[in-house]
Amino acid sequence: MNRTYAVIMAGGVGSRFWPSSRAASPKQLLDLTGSGLTMIAATVDRLRSEVPPERVIVVTGRVTVDAVAKALPDVPRENILAEPMGRNTAPCIGWAALHVRRRDPEGVLAVMPSDHLVADVPGFMSSVRAAVGAARGGALVTFGIEPDRPETGFGYIEMGAETSAGVREVVRFVEKPDLETARGYLEAGTFAWNSGMFFFTAKRILDEIERQMPDLSAGLARIDGAIGTDRQAAVLDEAFPGLPSESIDYGIMEGASGILCVPSSFGWSDLGSWAAAFDLSAKDDDGNAVDADVISIGSGDCLVRAEGDKIIALVGVEDLVVVDTGDALLVCRRDSSQDVKKVVDTLKKLGRDDLL
Amino acid sequence: MNRTYAVIMAGGVGSRFWPSSRAASPKQLLDLTGSGLTMIAATVDRLRSEVPPERVIVVTGRVTVDAVAKALPDVPRENILAEPMGRNTAPCIGWAALHVRRRDPEGVLAVMPSDHLVADVPGFMSSVRAAVGAARGGALVTFGIEPDRPETGFGYIEMGAETSAGVREVVRFVEKPDLETARGYLEAGTFAWNSGMFFFTAKRILDEIERQMPDLSAGLARIDGAIGTDRQAAVLDEAFPGLPSESIDYGIMEGASGILCVPSSFGWSDLGSWAAAFDLSAKDDDGNAVDADVISIGSGDCLVRAEGDKIIALVGVEDLVVVDTGDALLVCRRDSSQDVKKVVDTLKKLGRDDLL
Repeated sequence: MNRTYAVIMAGGVGSRFWPSSRAASPKQLLDLTGSGLTMIAATVDRLRSEVPPERVIVVTGRVTVDAVAKALPDVPRENILAEPMGRNTAPCIGWAALHVRRRDPEGVLAVMPSDHLVADVPGFMSSVRAAVGAARGGALVTFGIEPDRPETGFGYIEMGAETSAGVREVVRFVEKPDLETARGYLEAGTFAWNSGMFFFTAKRILDEIERQMPDLSAGLARIDGAIGTDRQAAVLDEAFPGLPSESIDYGIMEGASGILCVPSSFGWSDLGSWAAAFDLSAKDDDGNAVDADVISIGSGDCLVRAEGDKIIALVGVEDLVVVDTGDALLVCRRDSSQDVKKVVDTLKKLGRDDLL
Repeated sequence: MNRTYAVIMAGGVGSRFWPSSRAASPKQLLDLTGSGLTMIAATVDRLRSEVPPERVIVVTGRVTVDAVAKALPDVPRENILAEPMGRNTAPCIGWAALHVRRRDPEGVLAVMPSDHLVADVPGFMSSVRAAVGAARGGALVTFGIEPDRPETGFGYIEMGAETSAGVREVVRFVEKPDLETARGYLEAGTFAWNSGMFFFTAKRILDEIERQMPDLSAGLARIDGAIGTDRQAAVLDEAFPGLPSESIDYGIMEGASGILCVPSSFGWSDLGSWAAAFDLSAKDDDGNAVDADVISIGSGDCLVRAEGDKIIALVGVEDLVVVDTGDALLVCRRDSSQDVKKVVDTLKKLGRDDLL
């Protein structure tokens, strides 16, 4: 049949979006750019022309499974898999692949994070179709996002020769570079960002796991044997903690051969901070990105969000992030928004689990 | 008997302290510097060695009279006068003088705003005693606060020859100067700030009102005739709107002769803005003045206040005022805090009386 299944990875918390992001309402369940959709709903939505909801599989945590189900009302509840604990992406993808294999061993997994943004959806879908086509032939496929800046926050892919229209070989995956290296990559033109989206058949990825990660493969076999039985929950609880906590990039991709990539430029963003959310939000006449009742006096270029109908007055301020959740308030320089993680670290140290 | 009566003027709102200051909880009912006392309670408190609570008379508005009574539990309730409407300081002081005259025509009124700060209370009391002494002799007396900067926000007093130890003639009152004039005043050394505190006997001020403000005098006579009768409230309601809305400075002081002043330097502040509240508050190790549960990451020199037990995280910000009242939030550059009035103006235009 060779149909496409979306595997949406929704296990993260996104602590850089505190105080909006919390254990029970992580980044993917927020609308951070005023789109009107949660990020996970937008992720499912943009795939809809190729992947109907019944072929969407979501892997998330137990704390968030109900909220995810609520955010995706047309995805069948049995397609929403709750990990007993986060074990990085290789176990997550392997587990989803078991479910796809049961329906169709040649079914193609379109694996993607639940909390990324895509500006150009037709462009994205065109890349998805190219990647799915290549994956049907049995390849491991990824996107190679054309860089527009010497970004040091992403891993890169060195691309080789074209193997078919719009598809190239992957020479190697490289880790996050320093700035000088990133500048070289940008100049070279043969390096692309690794967006963490992957395409492969269930059979191919499970074969790779068997070859490269035998421990994971064994654990998955135990889980697979219990799917649909009354031992399912117990086996999952027992097996999951023993699975190796490893990413698909390190565990599989770097050791595989014949990987292909689809060079792409569809306005992708991993939306890594409040500053990125500001950049991608609509602005008012003062240049503020506002999701709140705001009075702005001599102020501009601020991101302002508030829950409830509180009024927020800005006076003489610029380039701030102001986020009010009722129980917590963040006031942050926009260009310091990577440091919001430090607030979360401090709250952990203080034992303020109520705010995490 | 010639006793001293404190007349505490508590009619203002102090809209520059929005969102903390509201119609029902104006500036004088707040603790803006972390002293542990409301400003009005501190005002009464610092006079206590000369003026016991039973000789404290407070003039406030009807909206605030209950809150004022609560803030001053040892001031007899009948000493707290509620104006039907604000008519500036001359009617306010005249009305209080009627009450003092009934107890003692030679009683000295020590008239002072309810929302100013004094750093050096012994120094202040020494000035009060000097001023009261001069007022007992029948003079109109004020303080001449020694300026420490060319302030353009206050009126000034030009001081003349010394008439007795620590008491000088007033040559003239001058309005708020421009910066150049203020610099000249500072250099001259004979100009002092007018703090809006005055001392005179009930008889003297009511005689001056009769001479200089006959309309006010006539209105006060009607009110006086009804004090203690069952017509009191009705006469007040009827007479008050007709009283001329005039300040004691313009209405009386500028047209009076033989005014004296007590040169003083007791760390006086009219606490005109959040910036002044910051300056006069204790700071933590980051230089923040904090009355809230704050996590400060790379931040400093901010004033932070919050009602309730909300947590406030500052990340990479400096020189801000952050005030959270649950229904409203102010984020303001410290050196823009005069513009907080503009927020109040905007709220008025929007008809948001719930936030005023």
